[in-house]
Amino acid sequence: MNIMSQILQKNIAASAGFEKADLVLKNAKIINLFSEEILVGDLAIANGFIVGIGQYDGLNEVDCSGKFISPGFIDAHMHIESTMVTPLELAKAILPSGTTTIIADPHEIVNMAGTIGLDYLLNTTENIPLNVYIMLPSSVPATEFETNGSGAFLVNDMTPYLNHPRILGLGEVMCFPNVLAGDPVILEKLTLCRDKICDGHAPGLSGKALQAYACAGIESDHESTSFEEAYEKSAAGIRILIREGSAAKNLRAIVTGLLDSGLPLDRFLFCTDDKHLEDIHRDGHIRWNIKMAIELGMDPIKAIKIATLNAAQAYGLKRLGAIAPGYRADLVILSDLQSMTVESVYKDGKPLEQYRFDNTTGDTIDPRLLNSVHIHELSPAKLKLPVYKKNHVIELIPNQIETNHLFESLPSDESNFVPNETYTKLCVIERHRNTGNVRVAAIKGFGIKKGAIATTVAHDSHNIIVAGDNDADILLAVDCLSEINGGYVVVSEHAVLGSVPLPIAGLMSLDSGETVQKKIASLVAYAHDLGIPTGVDPFITLSFMALPVIPSLRLTDLGLFDVNAFALIKYEPD
Amino acid sequence: MNIMSQILQKNIAASAGFEKADLVLKNAKIINLFSEEILVGDLAIANGFIVGIGQYDGLNEVDCSGKFISPGFIDAHMHIESTMVTPLELAKAILPSGTTTIIADPHEIVNMAGTIGLDYLLNTTENIPLNVYIMLPSSVPATEFETNGSGAFLVNDMTPYLNHPRILGLGEVMCFPNVLAGDPVILEKLTLCRDKICDGHAPGLSGKALQAYACAGIESDHESTSFEEAYEKSAAGIRILIREGSAAKNLRAIVTGLLDSGLPLDRFLFCTDDKHLEDIHRDGHIRWNIKMAIELGMDPIKAIKIATLNAAQAYGLKRLGAIAPGYRADLVILSDLQSMTVESVYKDGKPLEQYRFDNTTGDTIDPRLLNSVHIHELSPAKLKLPVYKKNHVIELIPNQIETNHLFESLPSDESNFVPNETYTKLCVIERHRNTGNVRVAAIKGFGIKKGAIATTVAHDSHNIIVAGDNDADILLAVDCLSEINGGYVVVSEHAVLGSVPLPIAGLMSLDSGETVQKKIASLVAYAHDLGIPTGVDPFITLSFMALPVIPSLRLTDLGLFDVNAFALIKYEPD
Repeated sequence: MNIMSQILQKNIAASAGFEKADLVLKNAKIINLFSEEILVGDLAIANGFIVGIGQYDGLNEVDCSGKFISPGFIDAHMHIESTMVTPLELAKAILPSGTTTIIADPHEIVNMAGTIGLDYLLNTTENIPLNVYIMLPSSVPATEFETNGSGAFLVNDMTPYLNHPRILGLGEVMCFPNVLAGDPVILEKLTLCRDKICDGHAPGLSGKALQAYACAGIESDHESTSFEEAYEKSAAGIRILIREGSAAKNLRAIVTGLLDSGLPLDRFLFCTDDKHLEDIHRDGHIRWNIKMAIELGMDPIKAIKIATLNAAQAYGLKRLGAIAPGYRADLVILSDLQSMTVESVYKDGKPLEQYRFDNTTGDTIDPRLLNSVHIHELSPAKLKLPVYKKNHVIELIPNQIETNHLFESLPSDESNFVPNETYTKLCVIERHRNTGNVRVAAIKGFGIKKGAIATTVAHDSHNIIVAGDNDADILLAVDCLSEINGGYVVVSEHAVLGSVPLPIAGLMSLDSGETVQKKIASLVAYAHDLGIPTGVDPFITLSFMALPVIPSLRLTDLGLFDVNAFALIKYEPD
Repeated sequence: MNIMSQILQKNIAASAGFEKADLVLKNAKIINLFSEEILVGDLAIANGFIVGIGQYDGLNEVDCSGKFISPGFIDAHMHIESTMVTPLELAKAILPSGTTTIIADPHEIVNMAGTIGLDYLLNTTENIPLNVYIMLPSSVPATEFETNGSGAFLVNDMTPYLNHPRILGLGEVMCFPNVLAGDPVILEKLTLCRDKICDGHAPGLSGKALQAYACAGIESDHESTSFEEAYEKSAAGIRILIREGSAAKNLRAIVTGLLDSGLPLDRFLFCTDDKHLEDIHRDGHIRWNIKMAIELGMDPIKAIKIATLNAAQAYGLKRLGAIAPGYRADLVILSDLQSMTVESVYKDGKPLEQYRFDNTTGDTIDPRLLNSVHIHELSPAKLKLPVYKKNHVIELIPNQIETNHLFESLPSDESNFVPNETYTKLCVIERHRNTGNVRVAAIKGFGIKKGAIATTVAHDSHNIIVAGDNDADILLAVDCLSEINGGYVVVSEHAVLGSVPLPIAGLMSLDSGETVQKKIASLVAYAHDLGIPTGVDPFITLSFMALPVIPSLRLTDLGLFDVNAFALIKYEPD
């Protein structure tokens, strides 16, 4: 018999009561999502699987009187890179609050490093106590108006991954104008993954455009911000991922509407999309979505079903998302269903405490991933920005990632822009292919004095982006990022005040989550000392200034980009 | 672009309203199973797919004012062979009442002919206007106490079929004692199909035995006869197929309990298992399950969801079971939702009338399938049954397939049994491998006078089974079955009164459904003329007399079988 058959044989014997189970959680309030009720009894576990519910004896027994047992929670859509830590560190951060399965779209690292980045995530998630499923990024490069690290990630690149047991399909399809236009590039990807899952990303899409988007085979969306939007998409057959992350918070609006409408819940899931470590440590992960839904009046069993069984069924994750014989013993022990207080977590039948979270992969990272900053020596001449009577100016809007497109006269030495307290110099420097591309613009609202901040985290192509009020500090900041192979840096008066190395593709750290949090916190303080106003998160704001898909004005390594016109700016204002 | 991408491109254009759809069903009451509501509007179809719901113009338009549109119905478990017609004839029979998808377990024909039988079903269902999905039979041979045609159908035989797009997994696992005993043969099959679907068959299984059965990875069951049984199985994570067929009628009990309990419906499906053509023509197919559920008080939309989307999701049938953009246009037009009157049916966007149901496969059937009766010349000596003071006697129970095990003295010529009006001679003759196996027993309740009836349909091994009151007619009946390559026959006073040839493996006819029905009806009349009482269906009853899994006493080609002891009878009574 093969190994699985042998395991089944043992589990059946334990289930039938012929032999003792490995572990029995006694007298628990077991949440049964099939009958949507709570069964009081023993939960028997063998070889990492649930083998029975009823009365059982175990080699090891844990009294769970008065405690609830839920299946482990599932995040149906998230980006590992956004946490800036390795998958192992991410697992450490999210497991304690009950998330045992994530479905990740490695959009950032594949834009950076293509299959090298994808392989890195697959390898580093192979043997950790977290179920990590991966969607193949559908939008690499994000646009043609920027230079990314990997070039295009196309059908031929995707094909070898299709049969990987943890590759579930196509990641969020963001280019809905291309879908509606019948662009062969995206259609070939949708066809390739047609028998798997195709995730969507369609903020505000409605009417016939939505019908056409669904018609293409796209099955989910996590961008709904109102119940009306979620309802229309759901009625079109699109599964709704209710998102509650660090930036985007859509749960209250959607769940409130859901409860009022009485709409069936079986097509709704939970996700975080992007959630930072500090928020995870404060509120927990998917546990927070469940808790909010319950506070809004949802029946706890239904809220837990959305966070578990609904997601497992939507993504075809067999034997996950429920408590029944044959299912994997990914379990969350809760003291009550109102506060959703997590007392302990079992992964594959073992309590978290029994896992050693050793970084066994740090030494095996592909050197190309660890050396991702490739730039020509940067001459001051390249940082010059000629001024005109009126100039394009990017204006920050505090607490938003949208920007305003202004036309203003700029301070200058007669020919070139000279930053001051109002107008900061913003530069994007291509760092992947040594093209030497450098673009410069004026940005209003940073208020940087006597210094510069820079990062290699710059969505979606992740070139170097730097903002400062003098070229010397700008050059020093860029040099520092080269030395540390990417990350965050703050420079003032020709000295590096501090930096956070993110050597993995310039996006992720090799340090522990705690260390990364501390380092960033202190660096953010330095940045604010330079004059960056509160309400503007220095590095997160900076990282979005190169993102050519959010209005109004952006800067990429190919030039100023007018998002509303969806074109690079070729003209001078006047 | 590949063909699918080109189709998507066209469908998207039609969906977005850039081009006209092929067909638009105007002003219909469209049943939306995601929002569980009825949307009034136009349903647009292109290239066999639903492309949009809303306001659409089509090259062809059909006014559906006041009419309801449902997705095509799905039979989650049935046996094609039980209808005794080819898949094409079956399609003709079930499509008009709205069944557009079936999931079939070819248990009979694979027991008969192994992969030859499986290939026949796959080939003949490839290009017909019915979606036919196949489960790999798990119990071939059904028991070790009989000789079947194919020998064992094991993991190595199954493996080549795993990647076939219409093979969904493992067929009903009937041998739950083997599962509980950890029998490697069944465990290897369950492991092989672990990432697909494993269907169950566990009448009355409960408690820890049920937990162990689910623990083995078995995900469905269609044998529940009470709500309590269905509830316990459902709570153990097993999907419940609510069966309403010709013989087994479980719907009323289960649905009544479901409605009283308020249990969620998403884990319940409909099936027929075995439904004869005459019942299909009278009541329709899955449509009848829906209608009964509605009459019992179930909301029509929920009843239709059980018959469509629930089944599609349970078996991973993408783009089937709902009405939404991107889904296949398998549609049922209904005049109302109470009577469930089917007005017309669309398969892949085309009305049934536009399909030509030509038998394109009759000439390509494997000759081994068409010549399945292989027996030695049968000498009268082999039909002798020595008598003792007391003898084992099989007693029929009218309207049941169970039998009684009697011990009685028998009429004889001093040494051997001589049939009379009370005691008929029953013989099973191995017909697959020319073993020469012949077994004889006395059976009470057939009441055959001056004749014999015989068939090659004899569950599960389908040897020849014959019942008669004299050896001459018994021998003639067997000869006739050899000549016609299997089927049904009635003989009286050395003359063949009539026969129904079933040349495909001795199980299925090459004739049309109508012809088969007529022939069988007249043959059944002849059989009753021989004295078989009403309440005993001559051939169906006969076909179960060799089935060694239903109590109490059966006859196989290896001997009398005591089902309760689950052993061949080695002793003489006294």
